[in-house]
Parts: sequence; C-alpha cells; structure tokens
Amino acid sequence: MTHESRLERGSRILSEIDGLAGERVVDSLSDIAPDFARYILEFPFGDIYARPGLDLRAREIGTIAALVAMGTATPQLKVHIEAGLNVGLGRDEIVEIIIQMAVYAGFPAALNGLFAAKEVFGLLDAA
Amino acid sequence: MTHESRLERGSRILSEIDGLAGERVVDSLSDIAPDFARYILEFPFGDIYARPGLDLRAREIGTIAALVAMGTATPQLKVHIEAGLNVGLGRDEIVEIIIQMAVYAGFPAALNGLFAAKEVFGLLDAA
Amino acid sequence: MTHESRLERGSRILSEIDGLAGERVVDSLSDIAPDFARYILEFPFGDIYARPGLDLRAREIGTIAALVAMGTATPQLKVHIEAGLNVGLGRDEIVEIIIQMAVYAGFPAALNGLFAAKEVFGLLDAA
Amino acid sequence: MTHESRLERGSRILSEIDGLAGERVVDSLSDIAPDFARYILEFPFGDIYARPGLDLRAREIGTIAALVAMGTATPQLKVHIEAGLNVGLGRDEIVEIIIQMAVYAGFPAALNGLFAAKEVFGLLDAA
Amino acid sequence: MTHESRLERGSRILSEIDGLAGERVVDSLSDIAPDFARYILEFPFGDIYARPGLDLRAREIGTIAALVAMGTATPQLKVHIEAGLNVGLGRDEIVEIIIQMAVYAGFPAALNGLFAAKEVFGLLDAA
Amino acid sequence: MTHESRLERGSRILSEIDGLAGERVVDSLSDIAPDFARYILEFPFGDIYARPGLDLRAREIGTIAALVAMGTATPQLKVHIEAGLNVGLGRDEIVEIIIQMAVYAGFPAALNGLFAAKEVFGLLDAA
Repeated sequence: MTHESRLERGSRILSEIDGLAGERVVDSLSDIAPDFARYILEFPFGDIYARPGLDLRAREIGTIAALVAMGTATPQLKVHIEAGLNVGLGRDEIVEIIIQMAVYAGFPAALNGLFAAKEVFGLLDAA
Repeated sequence: MTHESRLERGSRILSEIDGLAGERVVDSLSDIAPDFARYILEFPFGDIYARPGLDLRAREIGTIAALVAMGTATPQLKVHIEAGLNVGLGRDEIVEIIIQMAVYAGFPAALNGLFAAKEVFGLLDAA
Repeated sequence: MTHESRLERGSRILSEIDGLAGERVVDSLSDIAPDFARYILEFPFGDIYARPGLDLRAREIGTIAALVAMGTATPQLKVHIEAGLNVGLGRDEIVEIIIQMAVYAGFPAALNGLFAAKEVFGLLDAA
Repeated sequence: MTHESRLERGSRILSEIDGLAGERVVDSLSDIAPDFARYILEFPFGDIYARPGLDLRAREIGTIAALVAMGTATPQLKVHIEAGLNVGLGRDEIVEIIIQMAVYAGFPAALNGLFAAKEVFGLLDAA
Repeated sequence: MTHESRLERGSRILSEIDGLAGERVVDSLSDIAPDFARYILEFPFGDIYARPGLDLRAREIGTIAALVAMGTATPQLKVHIEAGLNVGLGRDEIVEIIIQMAVYAGFPAALNGLFAAKEVFGLLDAA
Repeated sequence: MTHESRLERGSRILSEIDGLAGERVVDSLSDIAPDFARYILEFPFGDIYARPGLDLRAREIGTIAALVAMGTATPQLKVHIEAGLNVGLGRDEIVEIIIQMAVYAGFPAALNGLFAAKEVFGLLDAA
C-alpha cells in the first residue's frame, strides 16, 4: 500500500468537500503565494478535516457557524455553504445554523449570512 | 392540552441544555436587568433552540465553534461546552471542534478555547 | 382597545424607523428564511426598540456607533444611518458619532463609516 | 484670555467625564508610555470629546454601545459606564443601551456588558 | 528655522508613505468631514508615524499585519500594502507577513489579505 | 546530514523564540489535546517562522501588532512580547508598535496592549 502524503490527503479531501470552488482558490494563489496554497491543502484539509472523531457534516456546521459569526470572511463562507451541501447538509439545516448565529453574533451577522446562502443557492439553481 | 408560552418553552429548553449554569445566569440578572433574563429565555431558547430542523447536538457544535472563533465570550463558551456534554457531545468531539477553529480564527482562539474546555472538564471531574 | 402583538408592534416601529429600507430587508428574506424576517420584526423592533427608557434618537446613536465600531455590517450601518435621520438626528450629528469611533475602533473603522454615510447622504440628495 | 492647549483642554474634559478613573489610567502609563498618556488627553479628549455638535450624554451612549459590541475592552467599558453616569445618563438608560446591543453584537456581548455595569454600580453603592 | 506644525509634518509623512493614495483619502473627506481629514494628517501621521524609535519599514509591517488580522479594513489594507512598497518592503516580504497571519487570525484572513496584495501588485504592474 | 522533521524544526524554533513560555503552552495541552500541541510546533513554527524571506524580528513585530489589534488573545500577546525581546526587539520598540495600534484598532486596544507589556516587563525585572 502506498503511503498518502499530507499534501495528497489534503488535495483529496478538499476536492471531496469543496469541489471546484476549492481548486479555484488554490489555483488563484499560484502566482502570488504558491506555498500558501500548499499549506491550505496540508494543514486545514490534510491535517484537520482528515482527523477522525468528528464527521464532515459536523465539521461544516462548525465552520459555517464560525464564519457567519466572524463576519469577515464572506468569500470563504460561500465556499463552505456549498461544501456543507456537498457533505450532506440540507439547505434548511444550513439556514438553521445561520439563523442561530443571531443569538451569538447579532442580527446583522445572521442577515449577511443568509444573504450569502441565498446567493449560493441561487447560483446552484441557475447552473 | 395547555399551550406552552415562549417563556415556558425557553425555560424548559434552557434547563435541558444548560442545567444549573443557565439558571445561574438568569438569576444573576434579576436585579440589574430582569427583562433581559426573560429575553434570554424567550428568544434564544424559546424561539431558536426550540426550532425543529436541527438537533441540539448540531446546534451546540455551531455555538461552540462560533464562541471559540469570536474569542470575546469566554464565560458563555464554558456554559456551552457543558451544554454540549449535556446534549450528547463527547469530550473528544468538543475538543475536535475547538481544534478546527485554529483554521478559521487562528491558533490563539483555538488555544484559549482548549483552555476553557480543560477548565470545564476539570470542574466536572472534581464535582 | 385591541392588543397589539409583538409582530404588529415590531412592524409599526420598523416602518417608523427604517421606512422602505426596513421593508426591503424583510421582503428579501421571504424565500430563504421567512421566520427570520418575523424574528427581526418581533425581537429587535417589537421587543427592544419598543422599550421605554431610551428614545429612538439615543437608540440610533448607539446602533450607529456599534455598527461603525464592529466594521462587519456595512449594509446594516447604511440602513441605520438613514434610520438615524428618520428619528431626528442631523447629518452633522451622525458624522460626529462616526468620527468619535476612531478613538474606540481605530481610524479605518471611522473612515469606512464616513464613506457609508457619504453614500447614504448622496443617495438621499439624488432622490 | 489665555489660550487653552489641546493637552489642557483634554485634561479638563477627561476629569469632567471620567473623574478619578481617567486620572488613574493616565498615571498608570507614566512609566511605560508617558507619550501615550499625553495622546489620550490630546486626541480623544482634547480633540474629539471637545467638539461641539453632540453633547457628552450622546457621546457616552455611543461609546458604551461600541465598547459593549466590540467585547474586547472591558476595563474601558467600566470607565465609560461610570463616565456615562457622570455626564447625566441614568443607570436605567445605560442598562437600556447595553440590552440593545444583543441585537447587533449578540446576547453574550450584552450579557458581559450587563455584568460590567452590575460591577460598576455595586462599587459605587459600596463607596 | 521654521517650526513644522503637526498638520504640516503629517502631510509630509503621509505623502512620503502613501503617495497619491493617501491624498485621495484626505480629499474624499473634504465635503463630509474635513476635520477628520485633518485628524488623519495630525494624529496617525503627524504624531505616530513621525515618532523616532521604529523605522517606517517596521511600522508598515505592523500595520499590514494588524489590518490583515482584523479583516474589516480592506481599503486601508490596500493603501498600506502600497505604502509598504514605498518605504522599502519587497513584495515577497509583504506576502510573508500576510501568510504569517494565518497562524494568528485564521486562513480566511490570510487568504483575503493575499487577494488584496494580488490586486495592488496587479494595478502597479498595469500602471 | 540528518534531515530535520517539521516537528523537530518547530520545536527548535519555538524554543529559540519563546523559550520556556512556549514549552509551558505545549506542555499544558498534553492531557487535553496533545495533537494540537504537535500542530503548534509543526505549522506556526516548523512551517511559518522557519521560512526565509523575513527575519524573526520583523515576524514578531507583525505578530505583536496583530495580537494587540485583535484584542482577544492576551495570553498569547504576553508570550510574544517576551518573544520579541528574545529575538532582539527593544522594550521601546515593542512599546512603539503597541502605541501605533491605537490608530488602527483604537485606543482601548493599545491601552490593553501597553498594560500587557508592563506586566511582562515587570515580571522580567522581578526575575
């Protein structure tokens, strides 16, 4: 059996979770910071998402909640809303977790999260 | 059948999720802002946590992730780490979701979240 | 006398404060999260802005200050700059409160707040 | 008539608003960063709070709201809760503006703000 | 020898650091908040950047790091990426400091910082 | 020549930068999240701080600036103030970079950063 490197494992998991959106992010870094593209594959995906102990569905709930609450990472939130759908979350479940963030990060954070979800869902419907 | 008010529903769910820690927060507001204690019962718990469509286990994953990522609400994070255990999350699962936040909110946020979890787990072991 | 529900009271106050901008936000949620539209009417407006003890002018000063300082809610800041005008704040007073935020949240926060105000004022002048 | 310098004006206004709490902050910087103590007197107080166009009561509403919403400046929030009382805000008004922040920055931010107010009010009652 | 005022010193240093980008920001405030334009010249540039004890290269490293980590001030980050180049930082050094922020503020903050740098570098190459 | 692993390189650099403070953090994770202790050694120190292209002095300026501006990571800020001294920054230079953050993140952030520095310097003087 061939050993899978962190980079290979991260590429495989990123592709499984984020599909083309993840690849586009990595590609967009190729001129300015190719090492950072590699770190994204290795650490978040090769190390963290690859860990047993929490399934990808639960991991995406946590990521979507955090990105909505932080309010500073709209492009990444959109990628992870699509990722949530890819790993089995329903649109209604994603909407639930965003609504819940009104409690912890305020109504504007939840509202902006819902608008991000609306945009992602709309693009998927139009595709 | 008697209709349950938002306040009654919120009190029931807060008690189910947070146990005594939730009651203590509500009691601590009785002199300075009793209306706010009522809002906590009514809106987060009577309205949001009461919603179908996402189970309490998933909701607490989202809340723990958000509070770790925000980094501004340590007392509430501790309450929700205990709440996570109450609704069926394992200690290892809580540690997983906190570790994951290093990716989205940085290593200090995850580190401070782990120290909060360590404190909560220690208090429970000593009880 | 007919009792006014939280939803009715919230709709009335939202309309008084935000005018058409508030209605547009509520309408934009009708497909993705109609319950959240209802919560916006019920809790922030039906519960909080409806409270006696602080007039709407003072409440909008607090909201504008907070949204400028947070820096994560530009669309909501614009709505509340217009709301501030609707409840009696002068343009100069709104500019004052934004400038003051340089002290607490830094010069970029104040600068971005001023650009939001400039955009709102410009749209009103063009209308 | 003698011209008042920015430093003199700032010292006068800081003393008027914050009383001894402001002086203690300035004194505590005398060994590590005396220039920064001077900047605090000159810019926030000598320049900003000295501006006409918004009274000190309105300015403290904005500051309290912002510091509660940010959640990263508890010591400064306590100073400005006391400052709010000094410039004529009632305890109930301060509680109102803190409660309102639940809408914009989430329930934990408001809760931690209320606990800060409870501590300040308690110290004043004990004095 | 003529004494240079804070305003004159700030204008000189802003021009040295930010070039035309700084002037454009100041000009854009002339209608809505001319006093704030003056404060920008006087306090950040006339007082702070003018201080001995840390060279402009080190100051811009700190500013770029902070703005990337905060994630709420993209327009100002772009200005300071260009400012960093103006005071002698290499493109590679700016990329390094942005990548490092993944550790402290998370991967999305670093990613959005890299995209801002890519945009600034691209505009300079096209000029 | 023996190849140094990421873990070995990270341990060496952490020890060089943070000395005992870094080791204490890693040790404190041994019961709750030993993998996260390993990630801290591997990614921030083994990958990022090990990169050529920016010296450790410049890297610590960026880290201190970011942690002061974020305001959510006081324990880590203290570790990096000491780290800054270890890699050659003077106390005056650290104070300069903290003061500068008043411009970008507000006066409370800078003030709390200065108090953290005062505590670190005091402990070193007492040792």
